[in-house]
Formats: sequence, C-alpha cells, structure tokens
Amino acid sequence: MRAVDLIQKKRDGGELSTAEIEWLISGYVDGSVPDYQMSAFAMAVYFKGMSMREVRDLTMCMVKSGDEIDLSSIPGIKTDKHSTGGVGDKVTLILAPLVASFDVPVAKMSGRGLGHTGGTLDKLESIKGFQIERTEEEFINQVKAINLSVIGQSDKLVKADKLLYALRDVTATVDIIPLIASSVMSKKIAAGADKILLDVTVGDGAFMKTVEEARELAKTMVALGNEVGRQTVAVITDMSQPLGCAIGNRLEVLEALDIMQGKGRSDVTQFICDLAKIMLDLAGVKASDEVIYDHLVNGAALNKFHEMVLAQGGDLDDLYRPSRATYTTDIVADEDGYIEALSALEFGLFAMRLGAGRSVKTDKLNYETGIVFHKKVGDVVKIGDNVATIYSDKILDEKEVTEFKKNVKINREKSVPQEIIEIIS
Amino acid sequence: MRAVDLIQKKRDGGELSTAEIEWLISGYVDGSVPDYQMSAFAMAVYFKGMSMREVRDLTMCMVKSGDEIDLSSIPGIKTDKHSTGGVGDKVTLILAPLVASFDVPVAKMSGRGLGHTGGTLDKLESIKGFQIERTEEEFINQVKAINLSVIGQSDKLVKADKLLYALRDVTATVDIIPLIASSVMSKKIAAGADKILLDVTVGDGAFMKTVEEARELAKTMVALGNEVGRQTVAVITDMSQPLGCAIGNRLEVLEALDIMQGKGRSDVTQFICDLAKIMLDLAGVKASDEVIYDHLVNGAALNKFHEMVLAQGGDLDDLYRPSRATYTTDIVADEDGYIEALSALEFGLFAMRLGAGRSVKTDKLNYETGIVFHKKVGDVVKIGDNVATIYSDKILDEKEVTEFKKNVKINREKSVPQEIIEIIS
Repeated sequence: MRAVDLIQKKRDGGELSTAEIEWLISGYVDGSVPDYQMSAFAMAVYFKGMSMREVRDLTMCMVKSGDEIDLSSIPGIKTDKHSTGGVGDKVTLILAPLVASFDVPVAKMSGRGLGHTGGTLDKLESIKGFQIERTEEEFINQVKAINLSVIGQSDKLVKADKLLYALRDVTATVDIIPLIASSVMSKKIAAGADKILLDVTVGDGAFMKTVEEARELAKTMVALGNEVGRQTVAVITDMSQPLGCAIGNRLEVLEALDIMQGKGRSDVTQFICDLAKIMLDLAGVKASDEVIYDHLVNGAALNKFHEMVLAQGGDLDDLYRPSRATYTTDIVADEDGYIEALSALEFGLFAMRLGAGRSVKTDKLNYETGIVFHKKVGDVVKIGDNVATIYSDKILDEKEVTEFKKNVKINREKSVPQEIIEIIS
Repeated sequence: MRAVDLIQKKRDGGELSTAEIEWLISGYVDGSVPDYQMSAFAMAVYFKGMSMREVRDLTMCMVKSGDEIDLSSIPGIKTDKHSTGGVGDKVTLILAPLVASFDVPVAKMSGRGLGHTGGTLDKLESIKGFQIERTEEEFINQVKAINLSVIGQSDKLVKADKLLYALRDVTATVDIIPLIASSVMSKKIAAGADKILLDVTVGDGAFMKTVEEARELAKTMVALGNEVGRQTVAVITDMSQPLGCAIGNRLEVLEALDIMQGKGRSDVTQFICDLAKIMLDLAGVKASDEVIYDHLVNGAALNKFHEMVLAQGGDLDDLYRPSRATYTTDIVADEDGYIEALSALEFGLFAMRLGAGRSVKTDKLNYETGIVFHKKVGDVVKIGDNVATIYSDKILDEKEVTEFKKNVKINREKSVPQEIIEIIS
C-alpha cells in the first residue's frame, strides 16, 4: 500500500477500505506515513468527507493506537459526558457530582482550555491543592469509593489523536466533521465509559457555527457510539452567549457552588437538571424532575463535589473564598431595553486577554480574573443597571471598557434564549 | 503572517495576495513553512484553483528562489522548447538542431524520464561520450559558437520547484494545472530564453488526458509567459500513441538520425517541420515550408546535430551503430485491417519494463532496449505483417508477447491520427 494512492482515492471521492484506514493510521503513529501525507489526506477529507463506515473505522483505529481504560471493575453503568467546548461552561463541575449523587459512577477525563474556550481541568486546578493527575488505579479506586472522579486525560490514550490534532491545528483542517467526531469519540471510547452524553455547542463561541453543522456532528457521533456498543445521546446547546454568569476559573467554581446551593440563575439550573435527566436515563436510573432538582439545590450534589475535592487533595476551606483579582470594574447599561446578545466568542477572548484563558498552549493562567454577568440575554435592563463586573489584575483602559460595552447588545424587543436546542439519540 | 491562515484562505476559495504568496514560497524554501503545511495548501489548490494573478506571482517567486541563467551575451533571439512529456518523444533531438541550422540560438536545458515517459537527457547520454553536465559559461560559449546546446538543468535553478515537485509527487497533488504551469514556466523563465515553444501533450500517455485539460494548461502557460515578457506559443499534440516509431534511448536516437536523413515517416517529419515553423517565427525568421523541409532532410539539421555531439564530447563513429540489445522479437499481425490504437501509456510502460525507462528515479537504464513500430495508427496491415520489433536483453515470455499484442488494436475502419490538435498563442 502507498499513502499517495490513499490520498488520491479520497481526493477523487472514493471510500477507503477498513484495511486502508488501518494501514494509514498505524503508519502515521509509527512514523512511516509522514505529516505531509496526513495533512494532504485531511485536506482531501475536508472537501470529500467520509462515509459513516470510514468514520467508524478511523475512530476504532485511533482508539487502538493507545491504551484503553478498563472500568469493568467498577460496579454499575459508568457514564461520561463531553462538551465540544464553550465559554463559561462549568457544566461538568455541577453535572458530574449531581449524577454521582444518584449512585451512578462518573469516571471522567477532561481537557484544558485554549483560545476563547475554557477547560474543566483549569477550573478544578483553580481550587487550592486539587490534583488532576492520578494513576489509573487511583482513578478507579476513587470512583469505586465515591462514584466520582474528574482527572486529566492520560498521555497514553489515543496516540493518533494527539498527533493528528496537532497537525490539523496548523494545516487548516480542524473544522472537518468526520475528523472532529473521530477525535472526540475515540477519546471517550478509550476512556472506558459505557454510556456517553455529548454536549454539542453551537454559536459564535463554539466550533460549530450553525445548528445544521452541529446536528451533523451530533448525529455522526451518536451513530458512532451506538455502533461500537457505547450508547450515546447528544444535546445541541446554545453557545451564542456565555453559559451561566461567570467566565474565568475561580469565578466559575464560585458560580458552580452557587448553583449547587440553589443560588444560581434559574435557566442554567434548569439546563443542568435537563442534562442530568438524560445522563441518569442512560445509566438506567429513573428520577423525576423534582427529585433531580432537589439533589442539585439541597446539598446532595454539593456534598458529592466536596467529597471529590477532598479525595483529590483540594482545600475545602479555600473553596468558597472570593476571587483575589486586584481590580473590579462594573459595566453599567446606558440605555433601557432587553439584553439582545452577548457574544460568547468576544467575551471568551476578552476573558482570555485578562489571563483567564490561553492564547497558546504554553500560556500560564491567572485563575482569579474573568467576567461575571449580572444580566443575560432576554433580561430587562434600565440605564445605570450593573450589567457585568470585570475582574482584572490591572486597571482597564477606556478602550477595553468601550470594547466590552460594544459587545453588550441592548434592544427594545425581548429575545428568548434556548439552552437545549435539540436532543439526538 | 501564519501559514495556517493562508491555507485556510485558499481552502475557503480566497485569492492570496502577492505578499502572501511571496511569504509562503520563501518560507517554504528557507524551511520555516514545513512540508505538511505546503502539502495541505497544494491539496486546497487542487480543489479551489488559483487566479491567473496568483499563478504568475507563484511562478515568479519560484524563479527567484534560485539562480537565473543570463543568456544576454548571446546575440539574437534565444528560443527554447519544452514538452510536457510523452512516449517516444525524440522531438528535441531533431527540432533543436533544425532551428539552430537557421542561425537561431537554441540554449536548452532538458530533464530525465520517469515512469512511462522518456527524457531527452537520457537519449543524449545513450550517445557514447556525450556530456550533459556543463558550466553556465561552457553552455553559453557553445551556443555562441554553434547556436546549439542541450544540457541538464542546473540544480541551482528554481529551488522551490525541486522541493515542491518532490512533495507533490507523494501527496496526490501532481495533476493540478496552476502548479504544473508554474513548475514548467518557472524553469523555462529561469533558463533565460526570450521565446518559448511549449508542446502540451494529450492522451493516455500524457499528463493531460483530455483536450480540455490540455487547452487549459496551455492557455495558462502561454498567458504566463506573455505576461512576464517571454513570448510563448503552445501546441497541443496527440500522445494517445507513441510519437514516431521508436521507444527507447538508442532506438530513438537512430530514428532521429533517420528523420534528419529524409528516411523518417512522413507524419513525424511533417510534425517536426510544423513545430520548427512556429519556433522560427517566434525567433523572427521567416522561412517557407519548403526551406524548412529542406533543412531537415538534406543535411543542415544533421550537421548541426553532429556539431553538438562533437562539442559535448560525443563519439560520431559510434553514433550510427545499431542497438546492442541481445534479443529482438517481431510482432506480426494476425488479422487484416488498419491499426486503430497503440496505447502510448501501455507501450511506454512496456518499454520501461524492458529497461528503457525508470520506475523510480534511482533506476539505471538500459540504453539499448525498446520497441520499434513498423506500423502506426491509420496504417493498413495484413495477416503476417511485421507490426513491431521488441529489443530486449532477455527472451520475452509468452505472457509478455500476448500483452504486447493485446495493445495493438486492429480495426476494419481507418482512423486518421492528428499530430497537432491546436495551436495557442
């Protein structure tokens, strides 16, 4: 077999056989297929796509390119959850303990943030002492003991994805649905859970800019998961505005704690309950909306979260302390109306520039900085109302404040945002 | 500037600016833009093409990536000729001395054969003692002295093309008209001639499989040459059957000598005269068809060829000796009719397997082996007629003979081949 022939076959709209995909991926991992052939192949896939059979083969080859976590020693149905990335997305911090509070084992590996999007690992590490590096044995033992652990993904999982992702990042081949689907699902499958909930975000702050694209990605991943025996459900959720109120690591942990104490916004609280219902359903647990809500706001989820923080070395005394950002700047409305739009992309980038996110992988984070919105899309505002507070480690200049305000769109008409746009199973 | 942004711009159908193309090509040559980005870019060009302005900028950046030959010290209008490759294509061996015999300076750099296509350098090197490596000074002095030199292309010319061509070869990005055009024309422009005749071959033995593709490539190259001040004319010529009678290095030299002695087939003799007329016209020399034919068959071209062979160290005594191939096998017709087709591709590959060509660049050639056709498309044949003779260094097995015969298509209807399909200027 020659890589050039496989590239040409794809370029000309052909379908690669299982053996051809296996040859290509194993060659790429062992170095016999060089980057310059794989990037040409990825670009051909951008234009010609892949059949569902090709995506499945690619995904399973990627799974086999590294270790696989064996969670079979943990009793019960193991569930996992993944988001395709967002701004202010603290869902895992709340959803994972909420589901675990129903005695459903949640063994989750998370990632870091890049660009305008945040990562669960960074949020957890903003908790003093919290350890995200755990051996497989420690990880499994913790889930056996308390039904919950969230750790960093092992470097030994899905080696092909690491190589391919780094290559796609520099060759304009990131936004290709078959490659995104196989990247996400290979990691989920290798991480060992039986059932998977996927949060496919859509909007200017997400990878997928339109509902159509998000639907295609969601359908691809759900079909993939189901075909390989890992029941998968996807929700398509709105990422045109940041999720909840806070953007920034410490600020998001504080919002998560608020929600788990019944002090969160009702929309985000309801959103988490909706996701929990799907995840519990996957795990075979029937719970009414009322019971789920009760677990969320009356301490069950919070206790589970505390258990995880303690089990992974975190400091509970420090957990509730406010942000130590040096400066806070309030942004007030200068017209009456309703919040029409809060660009997730723009505010994600704004928070990144405050130090809450990374523009390149090696950037160090400032856990304390970020933004807290007091108004969200659809909320009424009057002149002089405090719309948001910016937490920074330097005084903001007028240009920055003006830019921030420019992205707070106020209109006379009320918009109604929708958290879950569609459920695909 | 970032390469990933330029790849994405092209991928999304955008037009790169002059500065962007300069940045990309100079970065590629200095190593700061790696192969894996350039191959993704090339694949994007496959799908999205390039504007004429982009092709021109790319070509001139490639020219500037290496040395340029300065032929200005040679008096008169310097002409060059290039073929996009063919089977049995010995045109340069005859056309170059024929044009030079009109006191038009022909300073030509040629290439080697690969796969089913032959290369002029290999044919010249089959002449005992012939040297194709010459310094620029020797090259220019020879053209000043006898109006003719054909040598190998200097490694110092068009560095970007060498890198890019090797990359395209292994990433299924060879057959892309803007990239073929810039590759051919950058070499012609760097080689310094004032006027360029391009022979764009079409048919199963050529890069271009259809007249439409060949026309697009020809138009692109002619426009390119004219825009940068090198007047260019292209002829689209048939490569569905081998050119002339012989395939194989020594055998083609012998056919060239035959033609220059008036003993060639009339069709190929006429074809060379037609090309010479265009090339002389480019050089500002008006010559009638009769005078050109006279130069070709009555010794003027042959004397010029002898002068070049001597000037480049070749042995005139050895020049006319027959092939030293160990075995000859005659192929006879087993039905009456007309030759309908002789696949240039299949016979090119057959000759390659006899040792007359290279399947990979490092293969050593056997100069003596090859094929001589006694009948060409449109010729009448009767059962028992000798259609072709195969020159080999081992006895052919029955399978090889059967395969050869399979590709000699005989029909009751007479086909009329056409050497020059179209002229584009």
